[in-house]
Amino acid sequence: MLVRTNIVQFDSIALDCGTTLAPVDVAYETYGELNAAKTNAILVLHAFSGDAHAAGTDPDGGNAGWWDNMIGPGKAFDTNKYFVICSNVLSGCRGTSGPGSIDPATGCPYAMAFPPVTLADMVRLQKMLTEHLGIEKLLSVSGGSMGAMQALQWAVAYPDAIASSIPIAGTARHSAQQIAFNEVGRQAIMADPDWNEGNYYGRRPPARGLSVARMVGHITYMSDASMREKFGRRLRDQNQFEVESYLRYRGSQFVDRFDANSYLYITKAMDYFDLTHGRHSLSAAFENVRARFLLISFTSDWLYPTYQSLEVVRALRGRNCDVAYCELPSSYGHDAFLVNVTEQSELVRGFLASTFRERA
Amino acid sequence: MLVRTNIVQFDSIALDCGTTLAPVDVAYETYGELNAAKTNAILVLHAFSGDAHAAGTDPDGGNAGWWDNMIGPGKAFDTNKYFVICSNVLSGCRGTSGPGSIDPATGCPYAMAFPPVTLADMVRLQKMLTEHLGIEKLLSVSGGSMGAMQALQWAVAYPDAIASSIPIAGTARHSAQQIAFNEVGRQAIMADPDWNEGNYYGRRPPARGLSVARMVGHITYMSDASMREKFGRRLRDQNQFEVESYLRYRGSQFVDRFDANSYLYITKAMDYFDLTHGRHSLSAAFENVRARFLLISFTSDWLYPTYQSLEVVRALRGRNCDVAYCELPSSYGHDAFLVNVTEQSELVRGFLASTFRERA
Repeated sequence: MLVRTNIVQFDSIALDCGTTLAPVDVAYETYGELNAAKTNAILVLHAFSGDAHAAGTDPDGGNAGWWDNMIGPGKAFDTNKYFVICSNVLSGCRGTSGPGSIDPATGCPYAMAFPPVTLADMVRLQKMLTEHLGIEKLLSVSGGSMGAMQALQWAVAYPDAIASSIPIAGTARHSAQQIAFNEVGRQAIMADPDWNEGNYYGRRPPARGLSVARMVGHITYMSDASMREKFGRRLRDQNQFEVESYLRYRGSQFVDRFDANSYLYITKAMDYFDLTHGRHSLSAAFENVRARFLLISFTSDWLYPTYQSLEVVRALRGRNCDVAYCELPSSYGHDAFLVNVTEQSELVRGFLASTFRERA
Repeated sequence: MLVRTNIVQFDSIALDCGTTLAPVDVAYETYGELNAAKTNAILVLHAFSGDAHAAGTDPDGGNAGWWDNMIGPGKAFDTNKYFVICSNVLSGCRGTSGPGSIDPATGCPYAMAFPPVTLADMVRLQKMLTEHLGIEKLLSVSGGSMGAMQALQWAVAYPDAIASSIPIAGTARHSAQQIAFNEVGRQAIMADPDWNEGNYYGRRPPARGLSVARMVGHITYMSDASMREKFGRRLRDQNQFEVESYLRYRGSQFVDRFDANSYLYITKAMDYFDLTHGRHSLSAAFENVRARFLLISFTSDWLYPTYQSLEVVRALRGRNCDVAYCELPSSYGHDAFLVNVTEQSELVRGFLASTFRERA
């Protein structure tokens, strides 16, 4: 299945910070066919460093999508039945407007002049995209990690526009530890002289800082057990452990596909996201929610631990929402939602089928 | 109790790498009085970023020692009864020879020409120090984290020279995850252009890289719960969370008291330490051990988790060693051995008293 990323441009988007961004591009892909009643559309939401290429093979690089094991004919998000959409988030660097985009006012990249963006802004832009595609109500929104946080934001911001939400390995707000890990990544980038206050476009990017940031990220995405299994204390050569060369490789590889300023903007958006903000409880945030929910977390995920999903489940139950929850056994840590998909697939498949039957 | 750090110089030390380092300085402090029979001496071993100043107040900066709540009159390491010694480790930067020391062959700092050092080398130098102080057999060796690893190495390398060992929150070998976190710190330092292949003495040190490395470290020393308790999602100002400014402060503060090259050397020594190396099991490493043991770990310590202490306990038991073990409840994470000392004190106090009674 060869898939090309499309780009649509909107005149403008109003942001939470009070600024209007104009124009704004959105990169997206679709898989499967929208039915005549337009009731079979599912929006899939990527994690921090993901992009619109969620499934199939991209015709240029030949890369499989980041959730290709979940999306396709006969898979959990069955493209024989459903029309699946995935877009790159606002402030990203994979086709959607972000700090690397040209500011029409100056003719140069925005860099740090790009306005601060929230997860609610990202979701607002996704809503514009789905309306552009002629969809009034999505059968489901689903994603892992930051995608899960957006799936919750969708339910809160657009209660009538989704029939269901599947947040996987996510949270309603970052803990101090999650903020701390993100801050280390940001500091690593900004400590690199090549970052140059964000003005590195057309020059050498802050590759060393971004690489270190990615290394920290990778540790938090794996579990103690999965690192032991994958690397143990094996040496690559006399002077380095396999885990060291793996992290360095993944760090340097990341530099080729990700923009350091987008790293700063997106992690900040994640850290500031807090569904309890301005409300007296998380349950209050879900006051008008109408979607049904399937939440999933993984036993060995210490970055987005189970207690964060359970907090959401309790708050939804407190509003008498239809909510299913499973903690799946996995040794893959936070990465489990990307790699450990057998049981996850069955859960999602069944949940989507019943939602389609009852609510579409 | 005002305490000054002493420095003793030895002609040379033979290192595991085959090199001889000559001369070699050791910075150390002592607390309490050595008895006439020289049977009441305890060597306390500092963690990665610690130094010889374990207790009392230093007359210059007025700083309390890093284990001042454990060492002193009436405390766990009771200086009314015991003679307590603490020295800075080999390759450190707090008085003992390390990469910042002058290489007599060149008249310049060794920098990266300092020979690679192992934990066994560090312990060998500590043995030289205790002999210099006239002590043939220590009542105990004790430390947390890297100090615990040295306390194990002492028992293996010098079975007749210690009566007991108290390794706290330690391990017999680093896991892939522990190596990975150390490697991130090293890469952060080496990514800083000011590191300059280690040749920054007399110039600007790699402060930004070292600061990022320290920030990562601090996250791993705390627990998810202790970070939530201490910082939560509280904002310091509109643009930063308290946890962010805390980490940045601790990072920048570290730069003033620690040498980046020592960071590289000491973390490498920790990562390469492996008591099973060249043996068919951990139990085999303890074949000649005669000391009695008290091991302690902490429930919320995810950097040196309980299973690592239990692995040591099993291996010692496999040699029919006298070993006591306690997992103490604490929310402080790896830092618990430094801050959460009420129950730890009682355990250590009783263990030392019975050891002194039975073995001194």
